[in-house]
Amino acid sequence: MISFKDHLTSVAAEVEATLDALLTPSADLAPGEAVLWEAMRYSTLGGGKRLRAFLAVEAAAMLDVPRAAGLRAGAAAECLHAYSLVHDDLPAMDDDDLRRGRPTTHRKFDEAIAILAGDGLQTLSFEILADPATHPDATVRAELCLALARAAGAPGMVGGQMIDIAAETAAEPFDLPTITKLQALKTGALIRFSAECGGILAADTDARAALAEYAARLGLAFQIRDDILDVEGDEDVTGKRVQKDADAGKATFVSLLGMEAARQKARDEVAAASDALSRFGVRAQRLHQAAEFAIHRNN
Amino acid sequence: MISFKDHLTSVAAEVEATLDALLTPSADLAPGEAVLWEAMRYSTLGGGKRLRAFLAVEAAAMLDVPRAAGLRAGAAAECLHAYSLVHDDLPAMDDDDLRRGRPTTHRKFDEAIAILAGDGLQTLSFEILADPATHPDATVRAELCLALARAAGAPGMVGGQMIDIAAETAAEPFDLPTITKLQALKTGALIRFSAECGGILAADTDARAALAEYAARLGLAFQIRDDILDVEGDEDVTGKRVQKDADAGKATFVSLLGMEAARQKARDEVAAASDALSRFGVRAQRLHQAAEFAIHRNN
Repeated sequence: MISFKDHLTSVAAEVEATLDALLTPSADLAPGEAVLWEAMRYSTLGGGKRLRAFLAVEAAAMLDVPRAAGLRAGAAAECLHAYSLVHDDLPAMDDDDLRRGRPTTHRKFDEAIAILAGDGLQTLSFEILADPATHPDATVRAELCLALARAAGAPGMVGGQMIDIAAETAAEPFDLPTITKLQALKTGALIRFSAECGGILAADTDARAALAEYAARLGLAFQIRDDILDVEGDEDVTGKRVQKDADAGKATFVSLLGMEAARQKARDEVAAASDALSRFGVRAQRLHQAAEFAIHRNN
Repeated sequence: MISFKDHLTSVAAEVEATLDALLTPSADLAPGEAVLWEAMRYSTLGGGKRLRAFLAVEAAAMLDVPRAAGLRAGAAAECLHAYSLVHDDLPAMDDDDLRRGRPTTHRKFDEAIAILAGDGLQTLSFEILADPATHPDATVRAELCLALARAAGAPGMVGGQMIDIAAETAAEPFDLPTITKLQALKTGALIRFSAECGGILAADTDARAALAEYAARLGLAFQIRDDILDVEGDEDVTGKRVQKDADAGKATFVSLLGMEAARQKARDEVAAASDALSRFGVRAQRLHQAAEFAIHRNN
């Protein structure tokens, strides 16, 4: 069996090919349309671990869902993630110049194009999921759309981003319950959706619930690791500015718990994530490895 | 039978109540979440003709679809429309201070909140359509999501907005085919989706095709009327800045065709829209009236 890192790279290549095909416009474009597609491709292709797509692909594979279905659902999650990064980087939001070591979309193009490219990427996520090419059963397609919408909207990711913005002007740093909700919404909801895709595609309610529990734990561990890297990370390795949260005076799991307790909590969450997979036995090996990876990665 | 204007107002009130309920957050909000919902409500409630929702509601009623289904589909179209206006008004886009006579969302709140409120409203559109409360048949729900995604994304509305932006820096004003494509994408696609909702909800393919043809014609007439109002309109009545396109040196149906030919084209399109409804006989009366309204309205 190939190593986890090689496997992750191999799945990322499949996801990249899927995204490349999905981000190909029709031939007959009016002025302005070509640069929109270019910006959408720039924002989505050529980078990242593809953790969200990996979770969708591996959860689907574990449940014997056809590979193309897992890849398309994973690609939808990556488009949604890419849109959120493009908008998060905008001058009115985090005002970031670098993302994965490259200029952010509004720096490479301009602000208007970045806003619209992000908008179009969000729409594309739903288009992919609602397309019969993703799954022949409309019940599955409608459920995928509903689950993504709940994860991505005001009760999910967008709400989490607003809590994050409120942190900047709050009189004091947020407490642990608020930081935990921030994480669960801002990054946790989409990670959970990604893993749940396997159960939704397999139309297996019990498997979906187990995957949701697994991914909620993994997402929390992943965020704690992000907070650790924000303190200890190397900008050349992480590909983004470090010390952002500390500079902004925001509470993080590290500032609230201390470094050692944060490391321990991350380990505990990974153990709980693995426990949630017990019913799948050895078939869940790649998902177990993904949970371990979440707390050992350096970028 | 009550007059068309009174009927339009009455349906708009039903749509408003539907949107009000859909835009109500859960009770337990973290810092930042309340203002996000406030901005989403501000951007969506309390204004507009609700033409898109009207088309969905009336097309659904004509085909004996339960009223709640038409109202929810129409509300989804209105959320999508509201998001597009919020983002279109942003400083990096049209930089507008007024919308329907009130401060635009980024002027009332701030830019970050406006970006996120728009994002959340787009997501909410898909959440509404994918929810079993909209229709018990998942085939219908998945098809609603797919049709909205195609109308709203890069191959639709977002692409149209990019063509519109390209018009500002183009060496010469666009020609008629390009302006026609701009309209078909930027405003036409969502208007068409709205009317098609009736056919999708009724699972009636032939009716859907007829409604699509009707709405494509109506949307074009509607845009020509907008171009005429941009030249002749009164800011106090239209509730937005006039002469925008002329000031920006952009081609419009009026600049390309001349005022009289533009008026004639709008009348021709309304006639063609009505022809597309012939199979529905007298049941289509409200839709016929909506087409007439498109070219006689003053705001």
